[in-house]
Amino acid sequence: MSSSNSELIKRVYRANLLLPAYGLVTFTWGNVSEIDRNLGIVVIKPSGISYTSMKEEDMVVTDLKGNILSGRLRPSSDLPTHLALYEAFASVKAIVHTHSTFATAFAQARMDLRALGTTHADTFYGSIPCTRLMHVEEIQGDYERNTGLVIVEEFVNRKIKAEEVPGVLVANHGPFVWGNSAIEAVEHAKILEEVAKMNYLTCNIDSSVAAMQQELLDKHFLRKHGANAYYGQKK
Amino acid sequence: MSSSNSELIKRVYRANLLLPAYGLVTFTWGNVSEIDRNLGIVVIKPSGISYTSMKEEDMVVTDLKGNILSGRLRPSSDLPTHLALYEAFASVKAIVHTHSTFATAFAQARMDLRALGTTHADTFYGSIPCTRLMHVEEIQGDYERNTGLVIVEEFVNRKIKAEEVPGVLVANHGPFVWGNSAIEAVEHAKILEEVAKMNYLTCNIDSSVAAMQQELLDKHFLRKHGANAYYGQKK
Amino acid sequence: MSSSNSELIKRVYRANLLLPAYGLVTFTWGNVSEIDRNLGIVVIKPSGISYTSMKEEDMVVTDLKGNILSGRLRPSSDLPTHLALYEAFASVKAIVHTHSTFATAFAQARMDLRALGTTHADTFYGSIPCTRLMHVEEIQGDYERNTGLVIVEEFVNRKIKAEEVPGVLVANHGPFVWGNSAIEAVEHAKILEEVAKMNYLTCNIDSSVAAMQQELLDKHFLRKHGANAYYGQKK
Amino acid sequence: MSSSNSELIKRVYRANLLLPAYGLVTFTWGNVSEIDRNLGIVVIKPSGISYTSMKEEDMVVTDLKGNILSGRLRPSSDLPTHLALYEAFASVKAIVHTHSTFATAFAQARMDLRALGTTHADTFYGSIPCTRLMHVEEIQGDYERNTGLVIVEEFVNRKIKAEEVPGVLVANHGPFVWGNSAIEAVEHAKILEEVAKMNYLTCNIDSSVAAMQQELLDKHFLRKHGANAYYGQKK
Repeated sequence: MSSSNSELIKRVYRANLLLPAYGLVTFTWGNVSEIDRNLGIVVIKPSGISYTSMKEEDMVVTDLKGNILSGRLRPSSDLPTHLALYEAFASVKAIVHTHSTFATAFAQARMDLRALGTTHADTFYGSIPCTRLMHVEEIQGDYERNTGLVIVEEFVNRKIKAEEVPGVLVANHGPFVWGNSAIEAVEHAKILEEVAKMNYLTCNIDSSVAAMQQELLDKHFLRKHGANAYYGQKK
Repeated sequence: MSSSNSELIKRVYRANLLLPAYGLVTFTWGNVSEIDRNLGIVVIKPSGISYTSMKEEDMVVTDLKGNILSGRLRPSSDLPTHLALYEAFASVKAIVHTHSTFATAFAQARMDLRALGTTHADTFYGSIPCTRLMHVEEIQGDYERNTGLVIVEEFVNRKIKAEEVPGVLVANHGPFVWGNSAIEAVEHAKILEEVAKMNYLTCNIDSSVAAMQQELLDKHFLRKHGANAYYGQKK
Repeated sequence: MSSSNSELIKRVYRANLLLPAYGLVTFTWGNVSEIDRNLGIVVIKPSGISYTSMKEEDMVVTDLKGNILSGRLRPSSDLPTHLALYEAFASVKAIVHTHSTFATAFAQARMDLRALGTTHADTFYGSIPCTRLMHVEEIQGDYERNTGLVIVEEFVNRKIKAEEVPGVLVANHGPFVWGNSAIEAVEHAKILEEVAKMNYLTCNIDSSVAAMQQELLDKHFLRKHGANAYYGQKK
Repeated sequence: MSSSNSELIKRVYRANLLLPAYGLVTFTWGNVSEIDRNLGIVVIKPSGISYTSMKEEDMVVTDLKGNILSGRLRPSSDLPTHLALYEAFASVKAIVHTHSTFATAFAQARMDLRALGTTHADTFYGSIPCTRLMHVEEIQGDYERNTGLVIVEEFVNRKIKAEEVPGVLVANHGPFVWGNSAIEAVEHAKILEEVAKMNYLTCNIDSSVAAMQQELLDKHFLRKHGANAYYGQKK
């Protein structure tokens, strides 16, 4: 196993353990993967394995078609969703899926997470979309891959860039979130959950609340992510 | 005491301790039992004993009529409910009762937990029913046994299979949940509580939210529990 | 100091520490006292002292008029409320005041906690009343003592027995709760908070929810507290 | 470095660490500063640095114009907001900014936190105001300084005294809170969050709930903060 390979496995393992540490999963309801596009491999959590007993060597390495390259266990059943997203979104390096509580509630209500404040704007440049319902054939066919394709369709139709809105709600299911590394993707999953909670509370205070001003959204997203970003320390 | 007996006691004890660990009980508001149908015995938590001081030897062993076979303490006052469920549902091997917060709120509102998303569908194949109000004679008579009979009546009337929907809400009371072992039954109790919380939030986001698609419910329940299940590792 | 005196102080100290342990207080927002009617003394938390630095010897001992008998610190500013309750309710041995979140929200909404389920009925035999608004003279006069008198007035007017409903919500303020010992009073404060949370959730699921059946309320309260109680272990 | 300087840095560092300890921040979403008006310096958290890895020597010392006097790191990007508040509010010695969940939800709903109970009245003498929307030029210009100016404008227009209401909600953003020291300011930030949570719950129980009586507000604020305060221990 190459050494960059081994760093990747370590990182995916650590990122998976952050899910329960951040309160984002109950039992085995989540998974993290990361891609190495040069090596043509993806590392992902094994299916149905408890976070408390999972070991680094349980991570599964596959190629970009999902063929297992190393690992004794089956990969997460959501692997085909991850692969469809890696294929369509060239900028995405890591993907997280959870059933985190508030994000999942919005997914079940089939509602976008609109941008209501700077907490949202610091990470997500506009609404976090909720996908359309899947067709019966999509569910009964290659379901997990089709879940990925429906996400991609939503981003294409709405002209949303994956690098500007690093997450989505899959209708009646839950969030998929991404980033530049497995660790960052999990941080984005935590932020999405916090934003969903604030969104929930805000709409309960005022059910007809307006979205935030476009200029404020611009200001907060761009001061962190724009060409002239000035938030944080110099890189 | 036979060795399978002693394994059973250990398991029921450990499962009871999982209730506070999973945040499902306050003080003594819950209990777990498991049946060994070959030996004709049930092991259950003693009544009103604190989880922090409870010991393995405090578990109570009874026959299927509730007669105490071993143990110095009274069994949980809910024992007759457990026995009625074991009698009617041949597939049930372990039962949990809690007053977990969100599930109890739905029980107090006398509302079913409808299937709104895949988190629900992964464990419960359709609505988790709420029982009818008990008649005055049922309350003033053999109350705890009648609680069990009302649960059974609800499953029979609605043609719900106990092995497909491993839990119920007793009106104005709280959830009873079951499974293939004391540990699995407690996991189902945790899942039911999480599902109830998501259900609560979803209905507060959209009070007229529709149930999930039947095909999506089928897909998720059957990929874990159907004849061709492919979730998790090979058994 | 007599030895029963010293047991009492220890118990009040321990009970006060249970408030943060049970998540019932932020900073110094709560206090516990216990009375010894034979000795004619009350032991109470000192005013404005942090739970993290408080020591057993910081407890304040007063007579039944509130005169300090021992202790270097001022007693809780709520002492006159406690004394008014001890005077009026002969069965009360210990009192707790908190600003626990859900109970305080109902106090702020000036709403009773109606009996909606068995969790409530196991400890409170009917609605937990919310007091009337205090008159301006009551607020500007002997405010803390008048707070106690308004509680007593509510119980007298509604013919509620303090031993059957061991708690109250003071309008726009928060709960006072009592019991047979400082430890039991704190347990009742925890139960009242859990019941308030369930009540909140239930009313959000169904804003017109009915109170529970009187017969079910009777059954649950009396199987624990009635002459023929059978819950728990033999005493 | 002078010794009072070093005490100040220690205190600001400790106060910043209280933010995650009190559950007020996720990741780096908050900052604390304290001013020494005699020395003409402000000490503040560095920008975008994690609370788990932050060290005392990472604190940044600036003059009252925001020029860095010592420290290797950039100050919090919110520094100009802090400076505008220190300039306008002579009584303010320390400032905290967070995105705490319930306070931020009210900021997103652009709603004041009205005084609904004694928990509020013990620290805030009346409504905690929410600022007006910022004008496009204010957002696109010197945004962080303008955020401070909009806060000051709100207090001036409504004739609110900063020493009587030690906090504010910035519309679509979150709370800024202050006090007599970095530690007290963080305590006020925690209290504001608890008050926001109770306010949220109260309005969900009764959406048309009235504010508390002025006399009760007076009583509670003044018994702690007035000339004849009698809450707590003698100073």
